[in-house]
Amino acid sequence: MANDNRSLAELANHDDFLTRHNGPDEDDVQHMLATLGLPDIESLMLKTLPSDIRLERPLSLEEPRGEAEALTYLKQLARQNKTFKNYIGQGYYPTHLPAVIQRNVLENPGWYTAYTPYQPEIAQGRLEGLLNFQQVVMDLTGMPIANASLLDEATAAAEAMALCRRANKKAKTERFFVADDVLPQTLDVLRTRAAYFGFELIVAPAETLADHEVFGALLQYPGATGEVRDLAEQLEAARQRRIMTCVATDLMSLVLLKEPGALGADIVVGSSQRFGVPMGYGGPHAAFFAASDALKRSLPGRIIGVSKDSRGQRALRMAMQTREQHIRREKATSNICTAQALLANIAGFYAVYHGAEGLRTIATRIHRLTTILAEGLKRHGVTLVHDSWFDTLTLAGLDHGQVHGRSMAHEINLRYDTNGHIGISLDETTTAADVATLFDVLLGDEHGLSVRELDHHVHAQGMTGIPTACARESGFLSHPTFKRYRSETEMLRYLKRLENKDLSLTHAMIPLGSCTMKLNATSEMIPISWPEFAHIHPFAPQDQVAGYKQMIDELSAFLVEITGYDTISMQPNSGAQGEYAGLVAIRRYQKSQGQGHRDICLIPSSAHGTNPASAAMAQMKVVVVECDNDGNIDIDDLRSKADKHRDALSAIMLTYPSTHGVFEESISEACRIVHDNGGQVYIDGANMNAQVGLCRPGDFGGDVSHLNLHKTFCIPHGGGGPGMGPIGVKAHLAAFVPNHVITPLPGVDTASGAVSAAAYGSASILPISWAYIKMMGGRGMKRATELAILNANYIAKRLEAHYPVLYKGRNGTVAHECILDVRSLKTASGISEEDIAKRLMDYGFHAPTMSFPVAGTLMVEPTESESRYEIDRFCDAMIAIRDEIRRVETGEWPADNNPLSMAPHTQADLMADDWGRPYSRELGAFPTEATKAAKYWPTVNRVDNVHGDRNLICSCPPIEAYRDGD
Amino acid sequence: MANDNRSLAELANHDDFLTRHNGPDEDDVQHMLATLGLPDIESLMLKTLPSDIRLERPLSLEEPRGEAEALTYLKQLARQNKTFKNYIGQGYYPTHLPAVIQRNVLENPGWYTAYTPYQPEIAQGRLEGLLNFQQVVMDLTGMPIANASLLDEATAAAEAMALCRRANKKAKTERFFVADDVLPQTLDVLRTRAAYFGFELIVAPAETLADHEVFGALLQYPGATGEVRDLAEQLEAARQRRIMTCVATDLMSLVLLKEPGALGADIVVGSSQRFGVPMGYGGPHAAFFAASDALKRSLPGRIIGVSKDSRGQRALRMAMQTREQHIRREKATSNICTAQALLANIAGFYAVYHGAEGLRTIATRIHRLTTILAEGLKRHGVTLVHDSWFDTLTLAGLDHGQVHGRSMAHEINLRYDTNGHIGISLDETTTAADVATLFDVLLGDEHGLSVRELDHHVHAQGMTGIPTACARESGFLSHPTFKRYRSETEMLRYLKRLENKDLSLTHAMIPLGSCTMKLNATSEMIPISWPEFAHIHPFAPQDQVAGYKQMIDELSAFLVEITGYDTISMQPNSGAQGEYAGLVAIRRYQKSQGQGHRDICLIPSSAHGTNPASAAMAQMKVVVVECDNDGNIDIDDLRSKADKHRDALSAIMLTYPSTHGVFEESISEACRIVHDNGGQVYIDGANMNAQVGLCRPGDFGGDVSHLNLHKTFCIPHGGGGPGMGPIGVKAHLAAFVPNHVITPLPGVDTASGAVSAAAYGSASILPISWAYIKMMGGRGMKRATELAILNANYIAKRLEAHYPVLYKGRNGTVAHECILDVRSLKTASGISEEDIAKRLMDYGFHAPTMSFPVAGTLMVEPTESESRYEIDRFCDAMIAIRDEIRRVETGEWPADNNPLSMAPHTQADLMADDWGRPYSRELGAFPTEATKAAKYWPTVNRVDNVHGDRNLICSCPPIEAYRDGD
Repeated sequence: MANDNRSLAELANHDDFLTRHNGPDEDDVQHMLATLGLPDIESLMLKTLPSDIRLERPLSLEEPRGEAEALTYLKQLARQNKTFKNYIGQGYYPTHLPAVIQRNVLENPGWYTAYTPYQPEIAQGRLEGLLNFQQVVMDLTGMPIANASLLDEATAAAEAMALCRRANKKAKTERFFVADDVLPQTLDVLRTRAAYFGFELIVAPAETLADHEVFGALLQYPGATGEVRDLAEQLEAARQRRIMTCVATDLMSLVLLKEPGALGADIVVGSSQRFGVPMGYGGPHAAFFAASDALKRSLPGRIIGVSKDSRGQRALRMAMQTREQHIRREKATSNICTAQALLANIAGFYAVYHGAEGLRTIATRIHRLTTILAEGLKRHGVTLVHDSWFDTLTLAGLDHGQVHGRSMAHEINLRYDTNGHIGISLDETTTAADVATLFDVLLGDEHGLSVRELDHHVHAQGMTGIPTACARESGFLSHPTFKRYRSETEMLRYLKRLENKDLSLTHAMIPLGSCTMKLNATSEMIPISWPEFAHIHPFAPQDQVAGYKQMIDELSAFLVEITGYDTISMQPNSGAQGEYAGLVAIRRYQKSQGQGHRDICLIPSSAHGTNPASAAMAQMKVVVVECDNDGNIDIDDLRSKADKHRDALSAIMLTYPSTHGVFEESISEACRIVHDNGGQVYIDGANMNAQVGLCRPGDFGGDVSHLNLHKTFCIPHGGGGPGMGPIGVKAHLAAFVPNHVITPLPGVDTASGAVSAAAYGSASILPISWAYIKMMGGRGMKRATELAILNANYIAKRLEAHYPVLYKGRNGTVAHECILDVRSLKTASGISEEDIAKRLMDYGFHAPTMSFPVAGTLMVEPTESESRYEIDRFCDAMIAIRDEIRRVETGEWPADNNPLSMAPHTQADLMADDWGRPYSRELGAFPTEATKAAKYWPTVNRVDNVHGDRNLICSCPPIEAYRDGD
Repeated sequence: MANDNRSLAELANHDDFLTRHNGPDEDDVQHMLATLGLPDIESLMLKTLPSDIRLERPLSLEEPRGEAEALTYLKQLARQNKTFKNYIGQGYYPTHLPAVIQRNVLENPGWYTAYTPYQPEIAQGRLEGLLNFQQVVMDLTGMPIANASLLDEATAAAEAMALCRRANKKAKTERFFVADDVLPQTLDVLRTRAAYFGFELIVAPAETLADHEVFGALLQYPGATGEVRDLAEQLEAARQRRIMTCVATDLMSLVLLKEPGALGADIVVGSSQRFGVPMGYGGPHAAFFAASDALKRSLPGRIIGVSKDSRGQRALRMAMQTREQHIRREKATSNICTAQALLANIAGFYAVYHGAEGLRTIATRIHRLTTILAEGLKRHGVTLVHDSWFDTLTLAGLDHGQVHGRSMAHEINLRYDTNGHIGISLDETTTAADVATLFDVLLGDEHGLSVRELDHHVHAQGMTGIPTACARESGFLSHPTFKRYRSETEMLRYLKRLENKDLSLTHAMIPLGSCTMKLNATSEMIPISWPEFAHIHPFAPQDQVAGYKQMIDELSAFLVEITGYDTISMQPNSGAQGEYAGLVAIRRYQKSQGQGHRDICLIPSSAHGTNPASAAMAQMKVVVVECDNDGNIDIDDLRSKADKHRDALSAIMLTYPSTHGVFEESISEACRIVHDNGGQVYIDGANMNAQVGLCRPGDFGGDVSHLNLHKTFCIPHGGGGPGMGPIGVKAHLAAFVPNHVITPLPGVDTASGAVSAAAYGSASILPISWAYIKMMGGRGMKRATELAILNANYIAKRLEAHYPVLYKGRNGTVAHECILDVRSLKTASGISEEDIAKRLMDYGFHAPTMSFPVAGTLMVEPTESESRYEIDRFCDAMIAIRDEIRRVETGEWPADNNPLSMAPHTQADLMADDWGRPYSRELGAFPTEATKAAKYWPTVNRVDNVHGDRNLICSCPPIEAYRDGD
């Protein structure tokens, strides 16, 4: 062995990551191929992909890099970012993420690899975390209900605008008022949305609200320039005139300011970023959305509610899961799917860890230092534009050049407004020494001010920037949760206890069709914690973000090569945002071509509900294209509808491979038909994991696609967000992707408004996808795609004798997922797809996707990261469950007392002395050797969704519930 | 609230960490004081501490620093270290710690806060990890048994030397042979140990072994200068002459080299550092110790063995727990207590993740690159001192000055031997590009060599540095464990599965008397991952370690102030090493004073077994001092024995507060008596957590103490190591603390040999203690000590009506721990302290310390980090258990079928259809609301220790055991 026959190149560790990312090893591959009766993977690909779309060359990407090598290179890029001290504000603030939360939540796969909590029995941990978040928002805003986060403050404001219109149907106007001191990025996004909703925006001073005929209004509190105004009068006047009012606000300021709920707002939105979440060059952060009781059933996004389980115990779940776009599809005014669960959890835990007292100390310190700064500047004759403030001062009359020079020398960023004002926002990390430095920067070294003396003065005089009418009078965070976990030991145990309630990828495969729960490798995750990526303000000067820019440029180039498009827009921070941005780009393009009238969007009947909702939001009319019996698009129907609408045809939205898990043979033909009729082709990237390295949407007809980086490109699901949905577009659309009001993007039309608050969306998680591609290389990613397809076909093969596989391709293969049809079983036994899903929990698995795209089915996607060991374990479980169903069919077990209908089984079930079931405890809770060796326990029995929706409670439990345990 | 009444200083976040580290808040403190009937904490201190030892001033340390502030400062220090590329070798090598292991083991409190696995039912996870480690060592060394790690290679070699003598009683010589190419730091430690064992070391070329009359021999394989020699002949010759043979080796080289077991070694030692553990400026790393079957019951340190539980299921535990020093006390030749469990686990997981194939690739790459380097240098006429190598070349005839200049320019460290040779050791991280750079450094830029061409040549010619006779022929790591977890997903799940088997501080209080399981704060742990601390070679040039030096100097200054000593030696890397170093310092000092004959060591009967063992190793004679009925030292007995031995009295070893958990009033008196009789006072620092800020051993009579940084100063226990045991000494002893052969220490006599391999022991974990002290300040630490004492007294108060508290101080208080006497309960009910300990697992707790220092008792130490919530939960559990015992006493439950004797309860118990017990399932497994809300499950039933020791199996299970699950 000393004389190993391998070359140095073969011995190098560049390829190490491929074997780490992919689950099956060579032996597994051979076994699976043998099961399928195929000689090699290429044969499987030949059978599965249409020959006319296959990419006949390797992706032109670098060779794979080893993990250490890739991270060393990325660290070099990161170091090109400059981590200046930031006083820019505008919705983004430096903050201290408590180390115990950083390490045990943000950097813990037990938290970040979990899926959206659709299955509440195995998600009580993060549901509790999100309930905490809602409680924080409700308490600080003074509103009776809040959701479990939205994507960013700007889109939350846009959602608020849409809700105002929906909730104010009687209003005879399409005009919406926006105060002229809302954050500029919020206004940018509102303009885009308003354009396609057909709203007219009135941008004017907040005081003039009552002068306008509008259906709703958005005010900022405190204003973007720092002013703290008592809004009560304006909000009351608006209410009397039946104008719906929204207040965009800052959670930290509300610790000291009167809550918008008390001022009379209908809707309150904002960002929770400064509750411990790093700025990250713009995201991800959790925005919040709170509303009056009247609106509680209309809130966009996800809401966590309290319900009960089958034992009558308290259990949390997502309330009113059936979302706007599912119910209303093409009539929807929101396409929100994902949230920012991981970040909302972090913000919630930040509040839990600090409690009301801690938050008061932080907010008071920020305000005190701001007041000291104000007082010192006033003594030197600097003009303060406002005479009220919480944390932000706007200064007039200073010499920009001098101040700028000194601030750069001190590695400090201030805000320079175009009108000559200078803005300064203080934050949690600001110290007395920092304020002294600010005096040096603003006044020069000879100012002679002493922060200590100023503090004495401010303190003695009771000086404050908060008008009396705006001072908070009510308490907040009085629930025990916000009191008990204030030592690190207690906090750590709380976080671990919640983590261990939840099933994540750390336990088992999460075989969710269309959700691509693949490995989120540690090496991909490490860079997001680096200060050079984490602590960058999205509006930092361009010369401070060279590392980000190069990383984003490189990632864009990778994605261009992978997709066959010409350019990438990184702005959309979710898949749904990507759809919207893509359709808007099409509309803008068509308008530029004098084809602005084109507004028909063809969508197959199999599409995800988000597609028609996005089309509706882009002011398109949806025309449904039927599918044939094999689940494929009915090409004749497509041809006829394209022809019928040829003068108004704007686009088609297609998912590829289809949501039925099949590479449709007719994809090129479908694209051609649309193009021939003057339309553009939108390829939904949800199933991109079946394409990378094998075919490219840009080659077979796509004009635009969004890419779910949180599916195909390894950004973790975070328990329900963050996501990223950049779009790839052909050159003719490049000018029409979203631009940004503060960070103009090269090659993009200045008239192309934004869709998200930050220029590059959730930029700080882009290194995850960058690292994945860098470490896999083109060769590795192609292999991953092949293995994803192999794994899916192996599952289909192993299970087809037990559950019919609903759709297959021309040669009897599936793509990267397969749909198991359990409808006939339900007819025969009464056992539903939900029973099977819940029973899988007893076997230690997350359920597959239920009833999408076909009601009464289960869609299974294994991904390439699952080993044959795990896949066999899953198949064995499914087969054993089929046998259990048979025992119900035969009447051996009653339909209402069997391991399926009673699933999932909990420790509470086992605890009971009286078991009273026709099957054993062992069969109930430990159906396999694997579960005996290491059992994951659902913590509640089956959750009653109807009860929860009927009795909507979205706040933390009262004190009595906390007596013991938990 | 906007006009908060606090000053800016009060609003600053400097004190934040105090409230995070300490469990009880103000309300808790008031409640506990009320329970004790005391008005304030000062009253408790007055009752508890002797007035003559109290420190009457605050510690002269800085004010507390906030977490972010402290880490910012420490990062500045760290940046003063230079992370050059290191080719120094000598037992320390750069390595890639796989990210999935770094994040989920090294940086995961679930792993690092666990205690030593004395309670196997709640420790199966790390026991399996350690069994893996043993298997790796056994397979690679070719030996039939291995232990679960020792402190470092040098002390492992010293243990080997001692074992040779013990196992070779018939030898008529006290001479031990050491090959002249063992690592220099190993020889340094051997010299120290040999001196006090009375051994003479023969240092000579390995080939001359047969020429010497010795009881044992140590050879290095490969040698320190890189030579790979076939040792078989020498080992066989030694065997025939009844010389015990030890081989110190390198695990990575053994992947390609013939295993020492096959060559005939009796003992094999070495370091597993390069299996993924960062160099960390010297430690911590796991050394290993493997031996022949004949020695299997004599191995030093801990051995993990396979046994069975009460259900007959396979269960792991520490075999032969009763250690050398407990059985033999003052006759012991080893005082080893702790191991390097966390690092051994990491090294084991590294092997699991790479498997045999991965290790072969790595080792082959290292060797190939070394061969390429050798070939290129030979072509340029450079003299290679040896014609064999694995990864290390020694070069003669190069110009040191030129090479040094070029290497510094390239930020590269080579090894420069005093004889003019230059040494280069390659490693896992070395690339072809690195070798090209080495050519530049060694030969200047004009060498014209191509690594690619050299590779072709080396490959084509089948060149190797490994002599045929030394090439490995046998396989290794064939167990399924080393095959199944090769994808990151599988590895992650394996790590999490093992983590979740174990109880750690993330679950509950671990109330171990004398072990001080306090918070290991995240902010304290973060710096050890920084490359500037992790990637420093212990023999790096001094100008590259300025950051380490300043951090160590600052920490020393802190500890000087805390202890009242004059100087600190950071070298001892465990408490036991500290004891040894301290006693050796005393002996060296006394010798320097012409008092070398003094060799009596007084030790109270209550002492930990390690004390007499350490004394014996320092060639002292132990005289036991009795205790009185209250558990205090019998001062009259002390006086009489000190007087009796006054001419030979060397030292006394005292623990303070005593191991009985009491501040003995007579401590000053005891010290005075010893001093008056010419002796020195060693204060064992195990209970330092009760002293910090309240009293100082250096003030009340101590001449030397070791400090368990892993107890009082927050280094986590790591599941059984690492630890750190620096010693504080008075000025007269300062010259006699350990020095180091490669890194001479200022102020230390050059004749003072080392006790550990690295100059500053496990330097990379010192930032943990530094950060703790920095963030707490003198004020915070004093408060912590007071709270530790308050918590202990509160427990004693709450439990004394249920369990007698064995020892109390003069005023009825205890120190920071208390001993619960359960002997009378055992007499009445048959329920033992072990039954109570196991029953506590059902309640979700780790057992207190059992039967130390008094058999049949439980010693409870809560520390300051536990909240009243947790302490009450523990007291409630203990009281409920007392009630359960009563039901056995009254005969309600049989003595052999009750929740105590059946404890701990497992899922397997609950699974059974036939419960067959006189108490309910609920009472058995869910005795409290807290356990119903979040249950920690022991994974095996009570483990049979006797069976395991009788049938010693210390290897991984065979393939059949892996069929399913696990």
